[in-house]
Amino acid sequence: MKRTMDASSRLKAYLMGIDTHQEPVVYMREDCQVCRSEGFAAHSRVGVSSDGQAIIATLNIVYGETIPNGHVGLSNVAMERLGVSQEDPLSVHHAPYVESLSLVRQKVFGHALGGDDMDRIVVDISDHKYSDVEIACFLSVCAGGRLNIDEITSLTRAMVNCGERLSWDNVDRVFDKHCVGGLPGNRTTPLVVSIVSAAGLVMPKTSSRAITSPAGTADTMEALTTVDLDLAAIQRVVRETGACLAWGGAINLSPADDLLIRIERSLDLDGEGQLVASVLSKKIAAGSTHVVIDIPIGDTAKVRSRAEADQLSSLFSDVGAACGLHVRCVVTEGSKPVGKGIGPVEEARDVMAILQGEPHAPGDLKARAILLAAHVFDMADGCGLAAGKLKAEIILNSGEAWAQFRRIVQAQGGLKNLGGARFTHRELASEAGRILSVDNRRLARLAKLAGAPASPAAGLRLLVNVGDIVTVGQPLYELLSDTVGERDYALAYGASELPIFVIQTES
Amino acid sequence: MKRTMDASSRLKAYLMGIDTHQEPVVYMREDCQVCRSEGFAAHSRVGVSSDGQAIIATLNIVYGETIPNGHVGLSNVAMERLGVSQEDPLSVHHAPYVESLSLVRQKVFGHALGGDDMDRIVVDISDHKYSDVEIACFLSVCAGGRLNIDEITSLTRAMVNCGERLSWDNVDRVFDKHCVGGLPGNRTTPLVVSIVSAAGLVMPKTSSRAITSPAGTADTMEALTTVDLDLAAIQRVVRETGACLAWGGAINLSPADDLLIRIERSLDLDGEGQLVASVLSKKIAAGSTHVVIDIPIGDTAKVRSRAEADQLSSLFSDVGAACGLHVRCVVTEGSKPVGKGIGPVEEARDVMAILQGEPHAPGDLKARAILLAAHVFDMADGCGLAAGKLKAEIILNSGEAWAQFRRIVQAQGGLKNLGGARFTHRELASEAGRILSVDNRRLARLAKLAGAPASPAAGLRLLVNVGDIVTVGQPLYELLSDTVGERDYALAYGASELPIFVIQTES
Repeated sequence: MKRTMDASSRLKAYLMGIDTHQEPVVYMREDCQVCRSEGFAAHSRVGVSSDGQAIIATLNIVYGETIPNGHVGLSNVAMERLGVSQEDPLSVHHAPYVESLSLVRQKVFGHALGGDDMDRIVVDISDHKYSDVEIACFLSVCAGGRLNIDEITSLTRAMVNCGERLSWDNVDRVFDKHCVGGLPGNRTTPLVVSIVSAAGLVMPKTSSRAITSPAGTADTMEALTTVDLDLAAIQRVVRETGACLAWGGAINLSPADDLLIRIERSLDLDGEGQLVASVLSKKIAAGSTHVVIDIPIGDTAKVRSRAEADQLSSLFSDVGAACGLHVRCVVTEGSKPVGKGIGPVEEARDVMAILQGEPHAPGDLKARAILLAAHVFDMADGCGLAAGKLKAEIILNSGEAWAQFRRIVQAQGGLKNLGGARFTHRELASEAGRILSVDNRRLARLAKLAGAPASPAAGLRLLVNVGDIVTVGQPLYELLSDTVGERDYALAYGASELPIFVIQTES
Repeated sequence: MKRTMDASSRLKAYLMGIDTHQEPVVYMREDCQVCRSEGFAAHSRVGVSSDGQAIIATLNIVYGETIPNGHVGLSNVAMERLGVSQEDPLSVHHAPYVESLSLVRQKVFGHALGGDDMDRIVVDISDHKYSDVEIACFLSVCAGGRLNIDEITSLTRAMVNCGERLSWDNVDRVFDKHCVGGLPGNRTTPLVVSIVSAAGLVMPKTSSRAITSPAGTADTMEALTTVDLDLAAIQRVVRETGACLAWGGAINLSPADDLLIRIERSLDLDGEGQLVASVLSKKIAAGSTHVVIDIPIGDTAKVRSRAEADQLSSLFSDVGAACGLHVRCVVTEGSKPVGKGIGPVEEARDVMAILQGEPHAPGDLKARAILLAAHVFDMADGCGLAAGKLKAEIILNSGEAWAQFRRIVQAQGGLKNLGGARFTHRELASEAGRILSVDNRRLARLAKLAGAPASPAAGLRLLVNVGDIVTVGQPLYELLSDTVGERDYALAYGASELPIFVIQTES
């Protein structure tokens, strides 16, 4: 039985100017004939079509005269995805049944998903056929170690299949690095890319924005230069410099992942299998052949124990191997923040200080960048870690890495000046003693409440770190924010619980 | 640090007249000073306060002049929960961090939830502090056998604690029955209540509306009488007749469960632990002491195997025992639909036919009601099943049950006439032979697409059942609907796949 567009389904578009984020919403009058004849209720999923385009949207019923008679209100994302303008003709009908949702339900009930299953789910998600609630269900039952190796491999391939894929002419080996995160301030990527590409290896780095952290590499690099490059621009930058430091989101490398990440962020959830698939799918889509993955371990880092790190390492390696990718995982210490800045601009300051060889540049961040670059060199030519470290140190200390960083940034559009935040608050030690530990999760949350990464200059500058001796009244960190609301909210959070820095008093 | 209501947070309410279902949504202008100074973005969770009331809502950013300057738009549920009218003063601020969400995340990562944990989560959900996406996450990780006995017990108690609780003066034992569902048309409840209370046992039955089925008992009873009784009315009806057949939702027995059920419905998800807690919490809150639970088994019923039924039975019994409730599970055959009607009105017709002793009343539905009533009698006085069945049969066949049903309905507000649907379509057999099987899930979906339960008269009337011999062109069922859209959509679904009735042709 074929659905025909009868008189009652001829409606016109009315643009509501409402930003409903990624979930398309349509607004229909309670007295609308179509709404009544089709039996729609609030929060029904409905199909909307116009001129060959079709989307599935969530329905909100509107009472009163907000929408003119014979019109259907569209949220911004609904309008964009349908490609319609004010008064364009539309039809609204029952949403087609999304078959792949039955596969998600099977997963809820403990059945593993096959390769085809994963493909069907990921294609439907990237076609915006899932509601936010449905995506949340999929993510939740895939988190917490509930995806097996085959499922993660299928998910990785499915994500690669539904996006763009980069290829690099006349290059055999393409290197990449990634950190699983959870360690505030650990911004090694711009340093590793500069060192490694200064030595002639190709590293076209595309990074994500923050998921649950105060800054992603793309956020930090955006404080320094243009990062939303299209495919042609990225290829030009890499051709000219052997590397790039771009945002991956602008080139549609993994559109499904981008949709998933938004819901993960609102759930503050970052599942293991999802993490592996998200990372590796973007590496494969970016044309990488060799990847070094930094896995910091710490009580309040994302990975908390050696056993957990080993488990994650073997997932990365096994799934990588199944997808034809060489993966080396480097497990690092992760009990305390790295560098001094947390938040896009503050992390950029640390990166610049190291590249420019400033005396007060954070030594811990520099050492970590050298270690990771050494692993890349060892993967490339089997030189061994000691020789790799020496090579990285020479490139960094000689200014070669700084020169290469400037070439990359120049090719991307030039270096920006780092701005400052409007409000600064210095948090003072209330007792004297040695700093015993720091809660990285609460530190990250504090920086986020202060406004990072949406306000790039917001975040924290650490003035002490674990192991330091402090006196009463000595400043521990600066809280940086651009709005009064965020400043007050972060301060209230900072004061609400146990101290973020634990100080062991002298007795 | 205490938040004070500064000048910038003084805004006024603007009622949008938009029904966003259970999730409160607030609409702020993109150029609103508060929005900017607080650093809000689309889909931020925000806190809204007015005159002592406070809610958490999801933010939609609005571009253009839809909302007057200095105003905040509120969706209907946001307005109701805040208790504000047009132009009432409001303040909008960052949503307080909902601590119990970290417990949900622990559950995502496989940690069991303690009793206090479950209490905190359920209290926050019933206080509307969770977004729909967050509720979806909680439900998804609790589904599929991921709650242990202690967790289900805690969830049950937590749900009881946050709602109203009924008590019955001068009554020692309060009986109840429940069917886990999945079997279209299996509307035994009105029959069992009438039989059992005619014999003098107290059965104050509160039922739910449909979750994922074409009708719940409350939907069916609503076709016959008033079911949205308040607490006082329920107590009066039970005092007068020893029973009632009311909707549980109007008396706030388990407000958290009501919120969870809406999201379960939109995910078409009905997890085992969630199911046990939902059922038992409502029985406990209703003051029941003895409960018979009907668990039908069938390939396309909710429970598919004996092993699964046994597992569910022991969950019900163990959790019931931990909560001081006597529970008896009755596992029944569930491979084919019961009765002839599917949908509120059509199921009500079957119930009336049996109570009135009509010759064409469905015998299968009658036999099931007698079996369940017999189990109640056996729980009450240990008479044994055979004696219990005999007693139930006599009460039903003598008209005592029908007289008792009329008393109950009279006390609830009188008997309604059953209306008919506007559109009827007869589906004809395309081949001759014996009906081998029927897909109950697709049958239920067909009835839902036809408009049940929102349109009470919509649904199906079965004209044949499994085991019957049919000829080519013989009608299999009538599809009943109130709108053209629903009729066409249901027909398109019915025609889209394999036949719902499998006919074994004679060879």
